[in-house]
Amino acid sequence: MIPDKKFFEKDKFAKYIGINIDEFTPGYARVSLNIDKKHLNGIDIVHGGALFTLADYALAIASNAHGKVAVSINVSITYIKSSSGGRITAIAKEVSAGSKISTYRIEIIDEHSNKLAVAQGTVYIKNSAISL
Amino acid sequence: MIPDKKFFEKDKFAKYIGINIDEFTPGYARVSLNIDKKHLNGIDIVHGGALFTLADYALAIASNAHGKVAVSINVSITYIKSSSGGRITAIAKEVSAGSKISTYRIEIIDEHSNKLAVAQGTVYIKNSAISL
Amino acid sequence: MIPDKKFFEKDKFAKYIGINIDEFTPGYARVSLNIDKKHLNGIDIVHGGALFTLADYALAIASNAHGKVAVSINVSITYIKSSSGGRITAIAKEVSAGSKISTYRIEIIDEHSNKLAVAQGTVYIKNSAISL
Amino acid sequence: MIPDKKFFEKDKFAKYIGINIDEFTPGYARVSLNIDKKHLNGIDIVHGGALFTLADYALAIASNAHGKVAVSINVSITYIKSSSGGRITAIAKEVSAGSKISTYRIEIIDEHSNKLAVAQGTVYIKNSAISL
Repeated sequence: MIPDKKFFEKDKFAKYIGINIDEFTPGYARVSLNIDKKHLNGIDIVHGGALFTLADYALAIASNAHGKVAVSINVSITYIKSSSGGRITAIAKEVSAGSKISTYRIEIIDEHSNKLAVAQGTVYIKNSAISL
Repeated sequence: MIPDKKFFEKDKFAKYIGINIDEFTPGYARVSLNIDKKHLNGIDIVHGGALFTLADYALAIASNAHGKVAVSINVSITYIKSSSGGRITAIAKEVSAGSKISTYRIEIIDEHSNKLAVAQGTVYIKNSAISL
Repeated sequence: MIPDKKFFEKDKFAKYIGINIDEFTPGYARVSLNIDKKHLNGIDIVHGGALFTLADYALAIASNAHGKVAVSINVSITYIKSSSGGRITAIAKEVSAGSKISTYRIEIIDEHSNKLAVAQGTVYIKNSAISL
Repeated sequence: MIPDKKFFEKDKFAKYIGINIDEFTPGYARVSLNIDKKHLNGIDIVHGGALFTLADYALAIASNAHGKVAVSINVSITYIKSSSGGRITAIAKEVSAGSKISTYRIEIIDEHSNKLAVAQGTVYIKNSAISL
């Protein structure tokens, strides 16, 4: 069964960080975040952990939106440009879909479409359907 | 100049997540986090973003503890075991130290020393000294 | 100075493997390889090292085609589909171009455009121009 | 059934490159290579693809030495130091062993134990036993 937005909004950490689910379909997700002070590191740029959490949440939604439980195995993130404010968005797109292993590409952009980071993620698909 | 603990505690995101700096020396850092509800995802296990943030903070402290500004270029994290509570710890150790590029290995463990995730991170070392 | 095809063909390992340079411009390269027995592993599928070498060569050409020496810092490759014959192609495209660090995405496809692997690579750009 | 050295020596690409299997046990492997001209790139240092192939072969042996078919999902390699001759060695060690997914760490060193590269690899373990 395809999970709905309410299902994915049960993610407590994403909620605590302040991430919004913008849209998703099976194999695709877009999420965003308004940067404020709490997302910054010690030199007042957005923390790598905040960027990563945005990417990871997009990956989780895109991969679980197929209706079977998918868990991240590996994510490799490359940082491109620092950011210190505004709205940032992560977009996850399926690169390949296997029965057990699927691969995603995630881009994190600022509100001017500048790339802040890119990531490549691999998920393992369990046999269990998502229980809503 | 070698930054002190106060310098690294200025990280607002790490503070918001609740991460504690346990100890560090140049090229090494250990940080930890008491898991509570806000760190969990929708299926009540610790969010990949929380694990990553812990690793990334350890990497930032270990690499900047040399006294020159170091910024992450790339981090690849592999998830091993899920966790849903207790105290988790990330330990970053220098694998190689170059004049421009250094490499770190980070392990995330639970309080029974089970590995939850391992990561490999690369940082770029700027010419500027850290200004305290 | 922009290197020409002859410059990149001085790569002895790529030649030994049998890789052909199809085309390149600054920030882009396409290379290909006719699979024969010597490229296979013990279970008769194309060796991960052969796929990687193809990707790495595309990355080296695309990044050095700007005319300044660029060396790989990190490459993360994800395998999607195995292959045992035919012609395989790697295409490297610049995702971001910095003065010191640039990021590339590489796809490896078979002759039916099936994705065999995807990779994400980061290069460090030296101050020295390429000497032909 | 635990494969023997003969089984792993059926790898045609590793043989073509000239890699020697030094030793292995389940979850561990050490392989090495005498660098000669054919392993070099256009600027006469060991090609990233040769280093990677060494690492990948060590990973394949270590992970398949348990006796079940294991295939690489993802490998992230970070280059530390260039090399232009002598004997180089890759050592793969199991970081975590799951029923479906296992994680390895691989180091590539020169004959003076200088680290040339480090890699982190994830394999997927199939249900099939290795057929000798």
